[in-house]
Amino acid sequence: MTDTVSTIISPEGSLEVLSQQEVNRLRDTSASGIHDILRRCALAILNYGALTDDSRSVLETYHDFDIEVLQQDRGVRLRITNAPAHAFVDGKMIRGIRELLSSVLRDIVYVSNEIQNQSRFDLTSSEGITNAVFHILRNAGVLASSNDPSLVVCWGGHSINRVEYDYTKSVGYHLGLRDLDICTGCGPGAMKGPMKGANVAHAKQRRHHGRYLGISEPGIIAAESPNPIVNQLIIMPDIEKRLEAFVRMGHGIIVFPGGVGTAEEILYLLGILLNPENEGMPFPVVFTGPKESAEYFRKIDAFIQYTLGEKARNLYRIIVDDAVEVARFMRQGVDDVASFRREHQDAFYFNWRLKIADDFQQPFEPTHDAMASLPLHKDQEVHALAANLRRAFSGIVAGNVKENGIRAIEEKGPFKLNAEPEMMKRLDELLTSFVAQGRMKLPGAAEYVPCYTLE
Amino acid sequence: MTDTVSTIISPEGSLEVLSQQEVNRLRDTSASGIHDILRRCALAILNYGALTDDSRSVLETYHDFDIEVLQQDRGVRLRITNAPAHAFVDGKMIRGIRELLSSVLRDIVYVSNEIQNQSRFDLTSSEGITNAVFHILRNAGVLASSNDPSLVVCWGGHSINRVEYDYTKSVGYHLGLRDLDICTGCGPGAMKGPMKGANVAHAKQRRHHGRYLGISEPGIIAAESPNPIVNQLIIMPDIEKRLEAFVRMGHGIIVFPGGVGTAEEILYLLGILLNPENEGMPFPVVFTGPKESAEYFRKIDAFIQYTLGEKARNLYRIIVDDAVEVARFMRQGVDDVASFRREHQDAFYFNWRLKIADDFQQPFEPTHDAMASLPLHKDQEVHALAANLRRAFSGIVAGNVKENGIRAIEEKGPFKLNAEPEMMKRLDELLTSFVAQGRMKLPGAAEYVPCYTLE
Amino acid sequence: MTDTVSTIISPEGSLEVLSQQEVNRLRDTSASGIHDILRRCALAILNYGALTDDSRSVLETYHDFDIEVLQQDRGVRLRITNAPAHAFVDGKMIRGIRELLSSVLRDIVYVSNEIQNQSRFDLTSSEGITNAVFHILRNAGVLASSNDPSLVVCWGGHSINRVEYDYTKSVGYHLGLRDLDICTGCGPGAMKGPMKGANVAHAKQRRHHGRYLGISEPGIIAAESPNPIVNQLIIMPDIEKRLEAFVRMGHGIIVFPGGVGTAEEILYLLGILLNPENEGMPFPVVFTGPKESAEYFRKIDAFIQYTLGEKARNLYRIIVDDAVEVARFMRQGVDDVASFRREHQDAFYFNWRLKIADDFQQPFEPTHDAMASLPLHKDQEVHALAANLRRAFSGIVAGNVKENGIRAIEEKGPFKLNAEPEMMKRLDELLTSFVAQGRMKLPGAAEYVPCYTLE
Amino acid sequence: MTDTVSTIISPEGSLEVLSQQEVNRLRDTSASGIHDILRRCALAILNYGALTDDSRSVLETYHDFDIEVLQQDRGVRLRITNAPAHAFVDGKMIRGIRELLSSVLRDIVYVSNEIQNQSRFDLTSSEGITNAVFHILRNAGVLASSNDPSLVVCWGGHSINRVEYDYTKSVGYHLGLRDLDICTGCGPGAMKGPMKGANVAHAKQRRHHGRYLGISEPGIIAAESPNPIVNQLIIMPDIEKRLEAFVRMGHGIIVFPGGVGTAEEILYLLGILLNPENEGMPFPVVFTGPKESAEYFRKIDAFIQYTLGEKARNLYRIIVDDAVEVARFMRQGVDDVASFRREHQDAFYFNWRLKIADDFQQPFEPTHDAMASLPLHKDQEVHALAANLRRAFSGIVAGNVKENGIRAIEEKGPFKLNAEPEMMKRLDELLTSFVAQGRMKLPGAAEYVPCYTLE
Repeated sequence: MTDTVSTIISPEGSLEVLSQQEVNRLRDTSASGIHDILRRCALAILNYGALTDDSRSVLETYHDFDIEVLQQDRGVRLRITNAPAHAFVDGKMIRGIRELLSSVLRDIVYVSNEIQNQSRFDLTSSEGITNAVFHILRNAGVLASSNDPSLVVCWGGHSINRVEYDYTKSVGYHLGLRDLDICTGCGPGAMKGPMKGANVAHAKQRRHHGRYLGISEPGIIAAESPNPIVNQLIIMPDIEKRLEAFVRMGHGIIVFPGGVGTAEEILYLLGILLNPENEGMPFPVVFTGPKESAEYFRKIDAFIQYTLGEKARNLYRIIVDDAVEVARFMRQGVDDVASFRREHQDAFYFNWRLKIADDFQQPFEPTHDAMASLPLHKDQEVHALAANLRRAFSGIVAGNVKENGIRAIEEKGPFKLNAEPEMMKRLDELLTSFVAQGRMKLPGAAEYVPCYTLE
Repeated sequence: MTDTVSTIISPEGSLEVLSQQEVNRLRDTSASGIHDILRRCALAILNYGALTDDSRSVLETYHDFDIEVLQQDRGVRLRITNAPAHAFVDGKMIRGIRELLSSVLRDIVYVSNEIQNQSRFDLTSSEGITNAVFHILRNAGVLASSNDPSLVVCWGGHSINRVEYDYTKSVGYHLGLRDLDICTGCGPGAMKGPMKGANVAHAKQRRHHGRYLGISEPGIIAAESPNPIVNQLIIMPDIEKRLEAFVRMGHGIIVFPGGVGTAEEILYLLGILLNPENEGMPFPVVFTGPKESAEYFRKIDAFIQYTLGEKARNLYRIIVDDAVEVARFMRQGVDDVASFRREHQDAFYFNWRLKIADDFQQPFEPTHDAMASLPLHKDQEVHALAANLRRAFSGIVAGNVKENGIRAIEEKGPFKLNAEPEMMKRLDELLTSFVAQGRMKLPGAAEYVPCYTLE
Repeated sequence: MTDTVSTIISPEGSLEVLSQQEVNRLRDTSASGIHDILRRCALAILNYGALTDDSRSVLETYHDFDIEVLQQDRGVRLRITNAPAHAFVDGKMIRGIRELLSSVLRDIVYVSNEIQNQSRFDLTSSEGITNAVFHILRNAGVLASSNDPSLVVCWGGHSINRVEYDYTKSVGYHLGLRDLDICTGCGPGAMKGPMKGANVAHAKQRRHHGRYLGISEPGIIAAESPNPIVNQLIIMPDIEKRLEAFVRMGHGIIVFPGGVGTAEEILYLLGILLNPENEGMPFPVVFTGPKESAEYFRKIDAFIQYTLGEKARNLYRIIVDDAVEVARFMRQGVDDVASFRREHQDAFYFNWRLKIADDFQQPFEPTHDAMASLPLHKDQEVHALAANLRRAFSGIVAGNVKENGIRAIEEKGPFKLNAEPEMMKRLDELLTSFVAQGRMKLPGAAEYVPCYTLE
Repeated sequence: MTDTVSTIISPEGSLEVLSQQEVNRLRDTSASGIHDILRRCALAILNYGALTDDSRSVLETYHDFDIEVLQQDRGVRLRITNAPAHAFVDGKMIRGIRELLSSVLRDIVYVSNEIQNQSRFDLTSSEGITNAVFHILRNAGVLASSNDPSLVVCWGGHSINRVEYDYTKSVGYHLGLRDLDICTGCGPGAMKGPMKGANVAHAKQRRHHGRYLGISEPGIIAAESPNPIVNQLIIMPDIEKRLEAFVRMGHGIIVFPGGVGTAEEILYLLGILLNPENEGMPFPVVFTGPKESAEYFRKIDAFIQYTLGEKARNLYRIIVDDAVEVARFMRQGVDDVASFRREHQDAFYFNWRLKIADDFQQPFEPTHDAMASLPLHKDQEVHALAANLRRAFSGIVAGNVKENGIRAIEEKGPFKLNAEPEMMKRLDELLTSFVAQGRMKLPGAAEYVPCYTLE
């Protein structure tokens, strides 16, 4: 039997002053259909620390878990039923987890009420999408006008080995010593290590308000529960807005070894930076790992060279097994970003100037048809190809870990991807190497069965 | 020639993190028609301390004053042209004034963008209006969930004599010594005195975060400039929402001597408290003044007795010339409010439970026709009569000091009010006593010419 | 019968963490002889606001007042018996007064334990005295290394008329608008006005940590009770150390009209600034008052010209009836002080560089003999003459308001001062003008009987 | 060649406002003889993280390291020459290390000036010693009257294996989750693990002001450098005052596996708690380690049973391999301490009530003679025996790691200890087991050569 706790808690912060109408709307979660999403995200938060890639197994284990909003004139309370016991200490919920729960509630309600069911944001236009991203972030209170640039986004796999994990901690430590903050996608592995490292360094540097920012989305959160060290959590409505949040808020990006999700992120990033309108804008990007992982980046580098060309390779630097050098490079890069923004009177907290083309913003729904018809050939502009490759990888991630994706694969078999022969070969090599390196599943999971076929 | 200053300033606080769309909308003040209202309110803030009742004379003196919003990616700047020099110290704007200017901008933009041009608030329903009031106050950051009840609303004339003014200071001082905060309608006289007194007492009591809350509206602000001691300013869109903000936020109300505006406030308050749904809800109300002003409250008291009856008289207490007793009574009353709210789990910061009938919420436009057709007789429910008398007084205030009202009187002559004979007599006595006591104009102004006739 | 309150209170701040030995020492006030001084100072604090010049009349009114230190392992408590009721609000001591009481206790204990009964400070040497002054101030927590220079010392009479009082408020207001803080000797009149004015200005400028520093000494505090606006109070052990604290902490000095105590302060200041070692050190000094008081400064100016010469007149500026100009001059002067200190790496919080000669530091005990033998002639160096004139005025102050002095005069008749004929004439003129202007006693007191004769 | 940095830094906090005399005294480190001690302690701080047990090897490696106090009127600066490079990040000293350096300077100066060279503290009396301990702690600012009891002292070896280290981290983590703070003797191993664990837990619990208190002394600090996570460091003048600081400040004590130093601490603690005057006073004590270390505590337990008897065994609880249970027991115990102190009006921050007999307070100088003449037999009161055994272990620690001790052993051969036969046997068993378990030296060091012989 699973150990669970039931209790009633008060949310934190922004949920304290609500109108009666808002409280009613929160209560009315069944009608508006947000109860299910709230329940799943809340469970992910409460279940942090448990290692699983499969959203569904979590939901099955805690099938009788529930979260309910209680109405009070002075605010709201949350009734939690049958929650994982490890979120509590002697019956009291860990305060960091309580904060994260409040963040989830805040974002789900805001997106549902203010973004999706309002005419205010034109989500068919590029400008409208960016505006929505901005409003979600501002509502979450993470756009701080007073802070100097310091936010380093760390990408990489949740399923990395101990040597790689320790290396991400070391990089985080040296970033933290240089007064840099960490933003990741939440979850274990490369998304937790840098925060742990930075947390120790911030203690030594007396950086009392170090930021550990996590950006998630409802489809991924179950597989990538935020660690309670995360002190600012945002739930973006979909994967594309989550990626946009990363690149508009971050002042630099570090990519650690990872699987197909990491490849998706790399292609998204390079596709945007290759956009001619973004030329000359400073944006430090480093690919790094311990010496044991050098092969991984060689493969990625080769794949980029083939698909996106030499120009793309100039947009990042590969540093092997040198955490101090990574941190120094990033500190310098972030300082350059600061100078550039000051010079152009740009905001520090949101990179308005970055051009993100429409095909990187529109949500991609990885149905079998959509996957099969992705144009994966070199007869298109390089950033269009990057966008399509990104979609292909995004679909594979969904097939691996997202509830919808897993179900679709179970019903209809693996996705079929069509590519021109040479690209097919390269893709196959890359994905096969991910499988071989065990990057497609959590450690300890059974053998990986691909959710795709290349034809 | 008038002494003026031109400069560019940064606004404070909530205006720091804006989207590009919001900055554009702010800039585009001509199209949306909010430039004029912004200019008039800003001028009122900058012109604090000058004594005038006549909005138009201020606008004429500073006819070439202007305020313009400048766009920057990192936020907005305000270009101020030909502003009254006394808002500056050696060329630098007083920080309190800069804050108030930012508040004005914040509220005007919020009301224009989020309240008036959105389908979100149904301003024809009572619930929709209350919801709008709540949202404006929350957006202004004045609904603090952590504070214990402490907000005493002080009403009374801006045109009071020195003895009365010193008395309001003394009352404010004794309130402040008891850790109570002050909320007024801004402006000089009874709206400034209590804040000055409380400010000294708060210094002695080391109450470092004492609140001096001013609630104004665009039509009245020119005649009632907020003193920079005000550290929380809200501009409500009209007189009815301003009154609703007072009674939903305040935990008790003190009425000092005043003119017809004060009479309007008294009738509004009693009309609401007489509503059977509000019976039994604690709400401390005191009428008070120095012994020289005892006659004033005797007149008001008699008028209330005649129009609203004995029941209404039980809703307030008259205390003459005893500032300490007023403060003690108010402290006790506010404590009772706190107990009641705790017991009912009501919010401290907003009195949702208070029932305000529709006829106290709908804006009243005091045209000559509307004034002439007000039913002023006792053949109606007592709170309906209170509502209509409130409108009559509101119209007279407009005719005295508001730009629109003054112009209407100039064009069409005084308002005609129709009342049944006895009520006519009582009304005439009351208004005549206001004129005789010099309560209809600022001290030093020429003889008062009534803007109404009773028929 | 006098209205009194008896209660037990906890002191504030630095008295919270005491050793058992310290608590015992505090309790043992009879043996160490500090109980009497503690009682007198505490009564002065609690009796603030009452107007009297005569320490003894306060002590007689509250003859059964007592203060006792109670021992507790966790700290100390103070038992207050029969204290003046106006220090309480509904039975609870005003927090500012509680703070001031704690300051008194802190300083009396520190001076008694660490300064007077220790070999650590050589109080016979100039360096030892300065060191003691520094330690008392540091122990009081008023030497803040992080603050920019902003402390303007205001001197002047406690017995000034309404026009003069309002002028001191206005000067304080314009200083406060320029982010300057106020330091005075505590008490009413010119020592309260500037604080009241600055308090309003600081509220308008959102200067939340404005400093209102009072420096008193046991002999004077009964006649000059600190107003609770004072938020940093220091009790120096004697008049000379109090004067040294003023000139080492202040970044500029304003002299308002006053009586013989003010004359004492002027001579002290000029005597020091005339010291050749202090030449070239910026130290802004202004004598100012309303136009009605212009005559006062003309008299002082003439007396200085005769006694100290033209060079002394260059050390100050007289500004009549222009509060804004005084504030601007002071702001500029304080900025110059800041530049000088920065350039010389001098501390902002304590002017170590200022040379104070021994004859300005050694306590002067104004016995009849000592007064009679003061050399008041021009056959000495100008700063020696300044020192002796300072002593003469100091003795007259003692004869007017200090307990010891009043008793000595009662017993032995007025002090006799010997001066050379022309100086005698000038002194007589000056003192006579003080009497004529009513500056020797509080307003409302009976006719002034001089405590001195000039021979 | 060793990598070093030379620079000039400003100290933090309490050293900012100094008198000229104090600055001179600081400068004059040669005369007063405190330069050597300052240099050694500073080097220990800067050399944190390096693993060595031998003070002298550190001093040899950085033989040209120096620290010099520079005089400035505005405060002091520290010139650091040839400091270990790992204390710096890109040339800038880590802020936590800068703080620790300032603490060292603060305590060495305070002890030298105020404790050792003053008649104020009678260091021959028990009361005088306790008073000195209190004053050093208060001067360090670590006696916070506002905090609730939360300080858990963790003792144990600096030379523990990985399994034991991870266990100490886990215990620290579960203490931190329960809002408990950590106090240790600084250094690696069992003194670092609990802080690291608590730091993560405090981040999750949003305990922003978690305390990581280190108490060291000049003789031990080189072997036990404080980790920069320590945010409150105190250097006590000798080992006995350090022990007294632990037991008077701590609200509970956890003992992890360790060597002879840990045994010393255990005997000190039990000797005090066995004092009849301390009977009934709550003081939670836990001995704990992973299951692999169970044998260690069995040995200790048996030794205590033999030497101090059954009564002593009731003063602690042994918990094997259950970090959560340790944390729960400690949380409950600390709550009991809080209740007891409240009930008796005792201070939370300093346990005045605890009786520490003179023989636990007087510094023990472990010369060969003193060691040889320690009475180690059961023909004395049980707490006297505890005191003597404590001294024996203390001497062995000195012989192992302190500069003086090592030199004495080199010169005169091992200490000789005389004990009655059975006790000799027990002692031998215990010490031999320490050696066998590798607890007498840092991991990686050469074989341990005992600095003692048992005769």
